[in-house]
Amino acid sequence: MTNSTDFFLGIDGGGTKCKARLEDAQGNLLAEATSGPANAARHLTGSVAAVLEASEKAIANANIKGLRLNQIHAGIGLAGINIPQVKQAFLKQSLPFASWQITTDLHIACLGAHLGLDGAIVIVGTGSSGIAIHNGQQLEVGGHGFVVGDKGSGAWLGKMAISHCLETLDGITPNNPLCEQVMSLLNCDNAYDLVSLTLEAKPVFYASIAPLILQLAASQQEDALLLVNQAATYINKICQRLLSGNLDRLSLIGGITQPLLPYLNSQLQDIIQPAKASPEQGAILYSKMKLTNKVY
Amino acid sequence: MTNSTDFFLGIDGGGTKCKARLEDAQGNLLAEATSGPANAARHLTGSVAAVLEASEKAIANANIKGLRLNQIHAGIGLAGINIPQVKQAFLKQSLPFASWQITTDLHIACLGAHLGLDGAIVIVGTGSSGIAIHNGQQLEVGGHGFVVGDKGSGAWLGKMAISHCLETLDGITPNNPLCEQVMSLLNCDNAYDLVSLTLEAKPVFYASIAPLILQLAASQQEDALLLVNQAATYINKICQRLLSGNLDRLSLIGGITQPLLPYLNSQLQDIIQPAKASPEQGAILYSKMKLTNKVY
Repeated sequence: MTNSTDFFLGIDGGGTKCKARLEDAQGNLLAEATSGPANAARHLTGSVAAVLEASEKAIANANIKGLRLNQIHAGIGLAGINIPQVKQAFLKQSLPFASWQITTDLHIACLGAHLGLDGAIVIVGTGSSGIAIHNGQQLEVGGHGFVVGDKGSGAWLGKMAISHCLETLDGITPNNPLCEQVMSLLNCDNAYDLVSLTLEAKPVFYASIAPLILQLAASQQEDALLLVNQAATYINKICQRLLSGNLDRLSLIGGITQPLLPYLNSQLQDIIQPAKASPEQGAILYSKMKLTNKVY
Repeated sequence: MTNSTDFFLGIDGGGTKCKARLEDAQGNLLAEATSGPANAARHLTGSVAAVLEASEKAIANANIKGLRLNQIHAGIGLAGINIPQVKQAFLKQSLPFASWQITTDLHIACLGAHLGLDGAIVIVGTGSSGIAIHNGQQLEVGGHGFVVGDKGSGAWLGKMAISHCLETLDGITPNNPLCEQVMSLLNCDNAYDLVSLTLEAKPVFYASIAPLILQLAASQQEDALLLVNQAATYINKICQRLLSGNLDRLSLIGGITQPLLPYLNSQLQDIIQPAKASPEQGAILYSKMKLTNKVY
C-alpha cells in the first residue's frame, strides 16, 4: 500500500552510471542525481554503493527538510541482475529504504517506455539487448557481452570496422574510404598502430567509431552500408523475436538508435514509437506496482 | 662465416611455448628442448628468459662436455617481433651466444617449410596468419589478435560457434545440433552458463571448441558447414594474397590445418605441400644465412 505522503525513488543502474529520480506520491519530480557504475554482475558491493550514493544525492538535491531514505520507496533496475545468482546475492543486502524492489535495467526501461503496459524495447547503444513484457511474462534477448554477443551495437560496428581496416591494410580487401576515414579518426598510419589501440580496448572505444560508420553509410559508402545493414539485420531479428507474441508496442532506446532506424524493416519502423517515460520513471512504476500487488 | 666446429641453435618462440633445436655444423640434430611462452610483444624480458632457458636445456640434453652458449650461433624467431618497437627493444638485449639473429616466428617457419627458397606459409591454429618470402621481400598478413583479427582460426571458429549458440538460445535462430553439441561439450544448460564461461576466456578456450565444429562440418551439419566455409573463405583470401607475386610454394601449418584443407579452393589444395622442415630448422637456416651474408 502507498499513501499520499510517500516518496518514491526510481533508480537505473548500468555499466557506466547510476541515475536516481525522486518523486512525491503525486508523481511530481523533486530531484535527480547520478553516481558511478552499477553493474551488479561485475561488482555487487560497488553497485549497492552506487545506488545509495545516487539516492542520497537525489535527497540532498530535493532539499526537503527531514527527508530520509527510510521514508522512501525505491524501485531499482540494475544491469546484471538477470543472472539468478547475482539477484539472490543482491536480495540479501540490507538497504535503508521504507521498501525496495529490484529488477533488471531492461525491465524498468520497458515499464517506462510503455507506462507499464505490455510492450517491448530494444536498447542499441554501446551494447545491444531487448526485452518484451507480455501477459506478466518477461522475455530477454541479446546482450551476452562484447566478445560473443552485443551484435548490431555501437561496439560491434566499431569492432567490425577495425577488422575491415586490417583486411584492407593486409591487401585482401581493396582500398576504400571507410578504411581511410577510420585510420584518420584514430590517428593511425598502419596496421601496427591500429592493433596497438585494440590490445586493451574496452567496448566504449569501439563504440566511439560507430558514428563515423553510420555517417558513411548515410552517404552511401558501400563498405559502411554493408556493416550497418548487418547490424540492422540482427536488430530486426531481435525485434521480431520480442514481438512474436503479437505485441504491437516497440521502442528503441540508446545512442545509435536514431541513425540505425532507416535500415530496419519498414514494418518495424511503422510500429516503433518513442519511449513514453524514462527508465527511472519505469523503476518508480515498478515500485508502485509491487506495493499495490500488481504483478509485472 | 661459419666453420665445421660451430654449433647452431634454432629457436621458435610463440605465445604458449619456446622450442630450441641444437645442431652441429653438419646439420646433425644433437638435442631439443622446450621452455615457456616467448611472445616478445606481450613480455619482452620473459621472452628473453624463455629463449635462454630453452637454449640451456638443449645444451644440457646434448651432454657435450664443455659446450657453452658462447660457442653457439643462435637463430631466433619470436612472436610479436614484427612490431618495430619490440624488435628495437629486443636488439638492445645482451645475449651470451657466439652470434645471434632475431626475426619473426612466421619468418623462420617459412624458411623451414621451403628450406630457404621463396614460398609462403599460412599458420592456422589458435590464431591465423601468413607470410610470403619472395625476391628477398617479406609480406605478412593476418594475425592482429583475437578480438579484431585471427579470422578463420580455431579461436575464431569457437567464438563464432558460441555466438551461434547464444542466438539459438535467444530463439532468433532455430534449434540445431551445433548448439546442442557445444552446450553438451561445455557442460552448459542455458545462456547464463555459456556467457559466464566467456567472461574471462582466453583464445585457447575458444579454440578448444573448434575440433567439434570441424567434426560436425565433416558430417555435413549445416550450421557448422557455414562457419567452416566462412573460415575457409578467409584462409583462401590470405593464401591468394601471399601467392599474388606468382609464388607456387605454399605450406599450411597449425592445429586445424588438416581438417580445414577440404574446404579450401581446389587450386590451392593442389599447390599446398607439407613443410620440408620445422620452424627451429628454419631458425638455424636463418642464422647460417646471416652469417654467410645471404639476405632473406
